[in-house]
Amino acid sequence: MFTEYDIIVVGAGHAGCEAAHTVATMGSKVLLVTMNMNTIAQMSCNPAMGGVAKGQIVREVDALGGMSGIITDKTMIQFRMLNRSKGPAMWSPRAQSDRMRFSEEWRTALENNLNIDFWQDMVSGIIVENDKVCGVKTSLGIEIRAKAVILTNGTFLNGIIHIGEKQLGGGRAAEKSAKGITEQLVQLGFESGRMKTGTPPRVDGRSLDYTKMEEQFGDEKPSKFSYTDTEPLTKQRSCYITYTNSEVHEILKTGFEKSPMFQGRIQGLGPRYCPSIEDKINRFADKDRHQIFVEPEGWSTVEIYVNGFSSSLPEEVQYQALRKIVGFENAKMFRPGYAIEYDFFPPTQLNHTLETKLIENLYFAGQINGTTGYEEAACQGLMAGINAHQKTRGKEALILKRSEAYIGVLIDDLVNKGTDEPYRMFTSRAEHRILLRQDNADIRLTKLGYDLGLADESRLRKVEEKIKAAAEITTYLNKKSMEPEIVNTTLLALESAPISEKAKATNLLRRPNIELEYLAKADQELAAFLEQYDQEYCEQASIGIKYESYIEKENQQAARMKELENYVIKERLDYNKIPALSHEARQKLLKINPETIGQASRISGVSPADISILMVYLGK
Amino acid sequence: MFTEYDIIVVGAGHAGCEAAHTVATMGSKVLLVTMNMNTIAQMSCNPAMGGVAKGQIVREVDALGGMSGIITDKTMIQFRMLNRSKGPAMWSPRAQSDRMRFSEEWRTALENNLNIDFWQDMVSGIIVENDKVCGVKTSLGIEIRAKAVILTNGTFLNGIIHIGEKQLGGGRAAEKSAKGITEQLVQLGFESGRMKTGTPPRVDGRSLDYTKMEEQFGDEKPSKFSYTDTEPLTKQRSCYITYTNSEVHEILKTGFEKSPMFQGRIQGLGPRYCPSIEDKINRFADKDRHQIFVEPEGWSTVEIYVNGFSSSLPEEVQYQALRKIVGFENAKMFRPGYAIEYDFFPPTQLNHTLETKLIENLYFAGQINGTTGYEEAACQGLMAGINAHQKTRGKEALILKRSEAYIGVLIDDLVNKGTDEPYRMFTSRAEHRILLRQDNADIRLTKLGYDLGLADESRLRKVEEKIKAAAEITTYLNKKSMEPEIVNTTLLALESAPISEKAKATNLLRRPNIELEYLAKADQELAAFLEQYDQEYCEQASIGIKYESYIEKENQQAARMKELENYVIKERLDYNKIPALSHEARQKLLKINPETIGQASRISGVSPADISILMVYLGK
Repeated sequence: MFTEYDIIVVGAGHAGCEAAHTVATMGSKVLLVTMNMNTIAQMSCNPAMGGVAKGQIVREVDALGGMSGIITDKTMIQFRMLNRSKGPAMWSPRAQSDRMRFSEEWRTALENNLNIDFWQDMVSGIIVENDKVCGVKTSLGIEIRAKAVILTNGTFLNGIIHIGEKQLGGGRAAEKSAKGITEQLVQLGFESGRMKTGTPPRVDGRSLDYTKMEEQFGDEKPSKFSYTDTEPLTKQRSCYITYTNSEVHEILKTGFEKSPMFQGRIQGLGPRYCPSIEDKINRFADKDRHQIFVEPEGWSTVEIYVNGFSSSLPEEVQYQALRKIVGFENAKMFRPGYAIEYDFFPPTQLNHTLETKLIENLYFAGQINGTTGYEEAACQGLMAGINAHQKTRGKEALILKRSEAYIGVLIDDLVNKGTDEPYRMFTSRAEHRILLRQDNADIRLTKLGYDLGLADESRLRKVEEKIKAAAEITTYLNKKSMEPEIVNTTLLALESAPISEKAKATNLLRRPNIELEYLAKADQELAAFLEQYDQEYCEQASIGIKYESYIEKENQQAARMKELENYVIKERLDYNKIPALSHEARQKLLKINPETIGQASRISGVSPADISILMVYLGK
Repeated sequence: MFTEYDIIVVGAGHAGCEAAHTVATMGSKVLLVTMNMNTIAQMSCNPAMGGVAKGQIVREVDALGGMSGIITDKTMIQFRMLNRSKGPAMWSPRAQSDRMRFSEEWRTALENNLNIDFWQDMVSGIIVENDKVCGVKTSLGIEIRAKAVILTNGTFLNGIIHIGEKQLGGGRAAEKSAKGITEQLVQLGFESGRMKTGTPPRVDGRSLDYTKMEEQFGDEKPSKFSYTDTEPLTKQRSCYITYTNSEVHEILKTGFEKSPMFQGRIQGLGPRYCPSIEDKINRFADKDRHQIFVEPEGWSTVEIYVNGFSSSLPEEVQYQALRKIVGFENAKMFRPGYAIEYDFFPPTQLNHTLETKLIENLYFAGQINGTTGYEEAACQGLMAGINAHQKTRGKEALILKRSEAYIGVLIDDLVNKGTDEPYRMFTSRAEHRILLRQDNADIRLTKLGYDLGLADESRLRKVEEKIKAAAEITTYLNKKSMEPEIVNTTLLALESAPISEKAKATNLLRRPNIELEYLAKADQELAAFLEQYDQEYCEQASIGIKYESYIEKENQQAARMKELENYVIKERLDYNKIPALSHEARQKLLKINPETIGQASRISGVSPADISILMVYLGK
């Protein structure tokens, strides 16, 4: 019934969709197997994309030629650039999405790719011959062969849903869990673990009193995620902010004795930085309130996502507590929050390509690797897709460096350090975050995506134009002199020292608080020059100038790291024979068996001293 | 967590949605409980509404104030009036729908009704006190109280999906089945049975060769389902027609030994008039081909519904056979067809209100009553809704007569005759089908809907206007003389005898082949008069005139039936004490215990002779 595919992607969430789109665009024939074609690209949790560090990842996925940015732009109902008041390294795009539209647009995008076939079925195992994967088996008993397989099972592997003392089998509310894969992989020698995540109740927007809450508008001039020509929003829907209070907390506490988390029924660790409300109350006992974001699920639905109120307490407790929140006095629930436990595979079992070390041509992406978040999943799907395609074509792998992309940081962290709790991205995880900005992901990555055959030529032309324009603007600003009488009023108004003689625009721009647009307002000639260029290009030039010294320093550091990075540890070292290494370092190095000195240096427990010892041992 | 509702509706398919909308619009506070809020109003089988007799039902639902017609109009991608070449009693509207839009529009409509609350959960049982239902229990262990409960469980009660020799638990592909309700109802004394239905494979439209098939366009001037001001289509998507052939049949036969139907693994009977392809081959062995309708699933998706190819043979056999169909040579499947077995409750256990005889205030609607079809389900939901609302308010029930509506025929058939195979509507089931036309459902029913508080006033005004206009047109046509020299050319062209002296327009219109528009083309004065009126009104007048005698005869018959209908059998008769009755009639009468002579007369196995004996016994 099926001819052999180049690649089979199992699962059609954020990771699976990006993976399928990626390999298909690069030219592989791919079969996307999903348990339910009506739930392709379901946003299982909050109806939003991006946020701090996550927004940068979406921009990177877009820059490489992925679809998450385009889909988000087409389906968002609100856009905000977070951290605008901070430095540009912190700027982070975030969008509220229409949940149904998001799913539909992804499906349409995949259907429009002629290299993608679809099959609705549950994958129950993989076919392995000589330690190589060569296909999958399904619950219908079908065997489908392929050169490579990408598993993106999300929370479905042996998923168990917890609400208070009740346990329901399921991969998501009202959806079946997936059986068979974990058991087989464990038999093949994989180590597996359990993780936990959770989701808040959904409520009826008609039952809320928004007048008592703080309205959170979208940006006045909304930006977007994709570097392509998607349209920015012309209308937006507001979110609202409210808070829990001590009364809410007291009610929630009455459910603690039935909490599956506190009573030990849930073994897996949950996402530390996206804790349940009961966790927050427990861990931060001194805080008498927690913020709640009231997020609409789409343009027209009344369904509301109660962000910040994730819970697995009994539904009655959730309900009674919800109703003590200001604005929620008459709230009606559509369904309670719940926790879900699922199988993951510690990602130290992966190469940097996301191929498993044990089974050749088998790739893992998304929550199966212990991550949390749509963005983290999407970028892994994209990278697993690129590398599965490259491998099966005998071409070079793409491994992004920590200095090149958050994606590089994410995968490097996973593969080296592993994780025992759901891993999410933060800007603090990146050593070179001044380089990894949302404004320059295209400059960093689009050429790579283009060379791979993933990003199309129009993307490349666009980024080339941007680079050229930013350079022109920079050159101009380096030359451009500004007269005291023209610019001093502006400087004084911005509480910046006036100049006594002519100064280069570049130098003024380097001052804090001084933005290019202020200078342009003061100087007509400058304004006229800049008018030839897109706002985005001016911004790019401005960031380059303002943060030049930081960026340079980061680049130097990155170059040093790159040297280490590139120093390959050729043979499998017996670290037991290097006695000067610390006990912990020796253990970790033996376990992870790093490919380069760079990789070794980032293993948790391996100190700079250990690295020095290693370098000496290796004769460097 | 929940206050007491007036009514709880269990299930959000066609029956559940209409039921919830109906009771809420009439003023009841209703809770709609569904296992998955993302699958509200899923079209589980073909993406189409209406068809012969079924289209009339949708028009009736609309006339009463239901939503199925409006939702269909808003989401259809093609409209055809079937049987246009036959008499107006046979005209039947049919639409292809966009599956996702259909679901979404229904959800939006329900969300816009402030009397409807939603709860996502599985109902696992009902709460019964003193033989009265007073709420439901859910899988989360929640008890929710209500004055009445409407069960619309579709194919979910202990659903088992069959594909070849494989069996999967589920209420629909990739969805869980529902447990607990059947077992409880059986314990309460209900009789339950098993039924079977099936669905064809879905295929990838990109893999079909439409040039080899017959294109089936929508109507040039598409009409619509609702009598309200919904917009007719301005663009449409085509369907395609192709055929099976002997090669297809030979391949399918190779799967017969693994067929769950032929090998007895499926106990329940399937829909006789919507058989699986293997059933058709088996039963009509002399036919060397069967028609296949290739139906798109929406405006933009490439998914195709292979109407006419329902099957539960092994997926490999389905696939190989599909590929021998002209145009399907390279077809790719998205998923195989399957059969599904589920529990139903023989509907002789219901009153005409759809309330169960055993448990007060418990109503059943849709497939749980042994019917098949979206339209059949929707109208039951509407009627159960009306009657549950009326009962809980102490108001009069609405029982539609067989002469008033297909809905009346449907429920009367179910309640009296029961069914052991999925019941679908046909025009032949209606004795008075000349009265039950798609063009006059509003005239027949909207006043009833309005008086109940279901249809709004604008609907009533619209039908009053239609009645008035049709009467004016009829009066005019009764008076209007047509001159031989003006009309004879037209008559001759239509192969109708010319007239030698003036004739009334009415008389000419009564001739076969002579339509009002032809007369108007010949006679400018007539044309000018008709131009004041909507096309729909002219049609209404024309049908009234052309079929006057038939309609009158039907009305008389209906009046006689009404007398019988209305003769109430007051006390519970011991039919054993009426020895002259036939053995079969006595058994059936004892079992069904009819409320009126009319009802008794329509019980299968009760002959006119038995009715005469009964009338004598009752002193009539």
